[in-house]
Amino acid sequence: MTKSAACVMMTGSMTDLNMNERAYALADRLVGRAAELRVAVHRLPAGARVIDLGAEAQGGIGAGLALAELCMGGLGHIELASLTIDGEAWPGVTVWTDHPAASCMASQYAGWAINPEGFFAMGSGPLRAIARVERELFDRLGYQESGARGVLVLEGRTLPTDAVATWVATKAGIAPDALTFAVAPTASLAGGVQIVARVLETGLHKMETIGFDVTRVLSAAGTSPLPPTARSDMRAIGRTNDCILYGGQARYTVRADDEELADLARKLPASASADYGTPFYDIFKRYNNDFYKIDPMLFSPAEVWLTSATSGRTFHAGQLEPDVLRASLFD
Amino acid sequence: MTKSAACVMMTGSMTDLNMNERAYALADRLVGRAAELRVAVHRLPAGARVIDLGAEAQGGIGAGLALAELCMGGLGHIELASLTIDGEAWPGVTVWTDHPAASCMASQYAGWAINPEGFFAMGSGPLRAIARVERELFDRLGYQESGARGVLVLEGRTLPTDAVATWVATKAGIAPDALTFAVAPTASLAGGVQIVARVLETGLHKMETIGFDVTRVLSAAGTSPLPPTARSDMRAIGRTNDCILYGGQARYTVRADDEELADLARKLPASASADYGTPFYDIFKRYNNDFYKIDPMLFSPAEVWLTSATSGRTFHAGQLEPDVLRASLFD
Amino acid sequence: MTKSAACVMMTGSMTDLNMNERAYALADRLVGRAAELRVAVHRLPAGARVIDLGAEAQGGIGAGLALAELCMGGLGHIELASLTIDGEAWPGVTVWTDHPAASCMASQYAGWAINPEGFFAMGSGPLRAIARVERELFDRLGYQESGARGVLVLEGRTLPTDAVATWVATKAGIAPDALTFAVAPTASLAGGVQIVARVLETGLHKMETIGFDVTRVLSAAGTSPLPPTARSDMRAIGRTNDCILYGGQARYTVRADDEELADLARKLPASASADYGTPFYDIFKRYNNDFYKIDPMLFSPAEVWLTSATSGRTFHAGQLEPDVLRASLFD
Repeated sequence: MTKSAACVMMTGSMTDLNMNERAYALADRLVGRAAELRVAVHRLPAGARVIDLGAEAQGGIGAGLALAELCMGGLGHIELASLTIDGEAWPGVTVWTDHPAASCMASQYAGWAINPEGFFAMGSGPLRAIARVERELFDRLGYQESGARGVLVLEGRTLPTDAVATWVATKAGIAPDALTFAVAPTASLAGGVQIVARVLETGLHKMETIGFDVTRVLSAAGTSPLPPTARSDMRAIGRTNDCILYGGQARYTVRADDEELADLARKLPASASADYGTPFYDIFKRYNNDFYKIDPMLFSPAEVWLTSATSGRTFHAGQLEPDVLRASLFD
Repeated sequence: MTKSAACVMMTGSMTDLNMNERAYALADRLVGRAAELRVAVHRLPAGARVIDLGAEAQGGIGAGLALAELCMGGLGHIELASLTIDGEAWPGVTVWTDHPAASCMASQYAGWAINPEGFFAMGSGPLRAIARVERELFDRLGYQESGARGVLVLEGRTLPTDAVATWVATKAGIAPDALTFAVAPTASLAGGVQIVARVLETGLHKMETIGFDVTRVLSAAGTSPLPPTARSDMRAIGRTNDCILYGGQARYTVRADDEELADLARKLPASASADYGTPFYDIFKRYNNDFYKIDPMLFSPAEVWLTSATSGRTFHAGQLEPDVLRASLFD
Repeated sequence: MTKSAACVMMTGSMTDLNMNERAYALADRLVGRAAELRVAVHRLPAGARVIDLGAEAQGGIGAGLALAELCMGGLGHIELASLTIDGEAWPGVTVWTDHPAASCMASQYAGWAINPEGFFAMGSGPLRAIARVERELFDRLGYQESGARGVLVLEGRTLPTDAVATWVATKAGIAPDALTFAVAPTASLAGGVQIVARVLETGLHKMETIGFDVTRVLSAAGTSPLPPTARSDMRAIGRTNDCILYGGQARYTVRADDEELADLARKLPASASADYGTPFYDIFKRYNNDFYKIDPMLFSPAEVWLTSATSGRTFHAGQLEPDVLRASLFD
């Protein structure tokens, strides 16, 4: 009993998992496979490394898988898979992690606004855990990393300049030449893979928003269909969101009792939101392209299963919406 | 023809495949990833190494996958997969091996009773092939390993003591400090993965029981759903067995003619047993918790395909029972 | 715009991707795992290396996966998968590549007739890109490799002799001892995996035949069921073809506008051929075993999806034929 309690504590506070070191090693390997992965690598004047996986470079599926693993701090496992939805075969990804709070919330979640003069992008990746600009979130997670080098992921089409790199490095307290950026636009092969690999993260983020302590989630595994690349980043935002909202399935093992999980399950799937039911692009237009008017409760997997680590019971809610998926991806 | 016959003989007698060396290397790698896999590593006074993947340590999916590969002596390949059963998505594992007799029967099968004074567990893993305590089985397999170090897997919640390690090392004829234990309880994330990865092994073991020479099985591939972790080891025994008995699918390529395989197929699936049809936990209670009163013919995959390596014909028998699976895993 | 155009040009002309170096490294690794993969390795008098993955050696699933990756010049990714077809589970493979033109057409396609006195086999693998005997095809691809060593794959039961090796080495302009052959018969476990992994290649080859520039295909991903090994190579040719023609699904991202892709999609699936609809073995007999009388338009995946990289629209054509598949594989 004493040992078991000690174990819980340790997991609760999360030791430093070196996600930046893991991601840096993955970035080095990615650079070593640049021709194969069709990525371009630049050095900015102050020394920051920029890996372009789809802005000016071609990128591809392989670049997307590598980017997704890097974005989860090396603690998430992503593979291409053939899924069956509504009796039909769909290309998709499987994602699993034994470190959901760290890999999804302290790394993969795009929570850091990178906004020096003249630039804007939401930053994801493990550097967030060194910078800890999102102090409240990291305090709640009880997580931080203290490395001297780090990796930041940007979803976008504009590569960071030296000024952006210096701004980021300063905020994170590391040297600019110890900083690696990995960049892919939403409407790119690599971007598509990287975004739908967020299927577990969206569920955790919604738990966070609801006020559920995500460090109680012990392991997670899920799937999402993979969208065909859209003709514009705006359309791609629609398709990638729809893959998760209407095609994503996520299973979480949680240290919580049945009542808590029954309640959480009811709230967790995307269908719990009033905005649910039509392609994301249409929802976006309905709110005059104002992202912040969309119900934040919308952003989570279509279908969830929550298993109590204490009772062994599983609470299931939500369902896939193949018709909405088809309308979004193929019309 | 001569060459072909020579080839058959060699396969029949199985050369030393160094499963202990393979598993030892996997164990070393596992230890190197201890924080990531949430496993704890201890050294006992006499030098044996104990890897805890779910008793006092947290473990996880990754620990389970590593444990399953180690348990098959490095000759089985296990991956998380999304399965479709009864039109629905289920998390599961795929398992395949080109060395079914060695990896499943000479390693993965839990056939060695580890019973020094005050301790009891069934031992699996490649050390069995060095110890060869199960002499008759190993004689039939024509298999043995002669390494100086080895790996033993225990399904349980009690970590082995120095006395247990010394007992095991002595029986195996190796030094205690050349011995690695890998331990995970049934009711743990890692235990769950490791046990359902036995989907091919249960079929081979039933062939053995029926009197079919398993060295004639050339390759095997299968799938099993992955259960949510149950609240107790007893309940977990129920769920993990049900995953195989009511959700397991196994395909074997066998050097045998059509008549033999037609007969074997009829007997092989779990449904050939009179005890088939209700969750394993209920069967267990029906026999007053006496494991040895349960029909041994029950323990095999729900559905099997046997392909004759000579005629190319495939014999299929059994079927999945999604309702029993659902009752066992989710009720 | 200028940068984007430059990028297109570079992809159009395809830089040397070192497929022979990649395949050579894979072959070395394969040889290092010879016992595990059940392959036999010979050295011919003049120094060529022959890896037998199923002629006299046993081979297996692992050998087949390694052979398939090697055959795609190390730029294709092949994994065993559980597919759902017609509501049932089928064993299969997933294949994807970010270098479809190079890996499928400049390497995997069996386009080089190896026909010195007394020997005949169609050669595939990256050595074709050094030898460039198929000059017109390679000119259209704009692809060549200039390495000093290379790998050739033969589908067959007869291992190459020293004379065959010398003939091949001379044609390719490399030393015989810098040449590696990888050989597996159609009716073998490894051969089966290697052939159905051609699901993407058959679609690209048909595009080529139709006159569509395959260097415009940016990425591709697909699946094919995996057949049980047939009793003869002739029967195995039937089954492996049927897996692709009636069970293969291929998705291509293409730099092309909607009109072109709508037209291409209509022509691309196997069902666009008049010979479509019965097991390949029967078609073959219908033409008195004359391969060259079969409609070349037959050889492509059952179902295809073409996504325009410019418009984001997807064009879908064809469908699976589970009844033909079942008749071919299981009757």
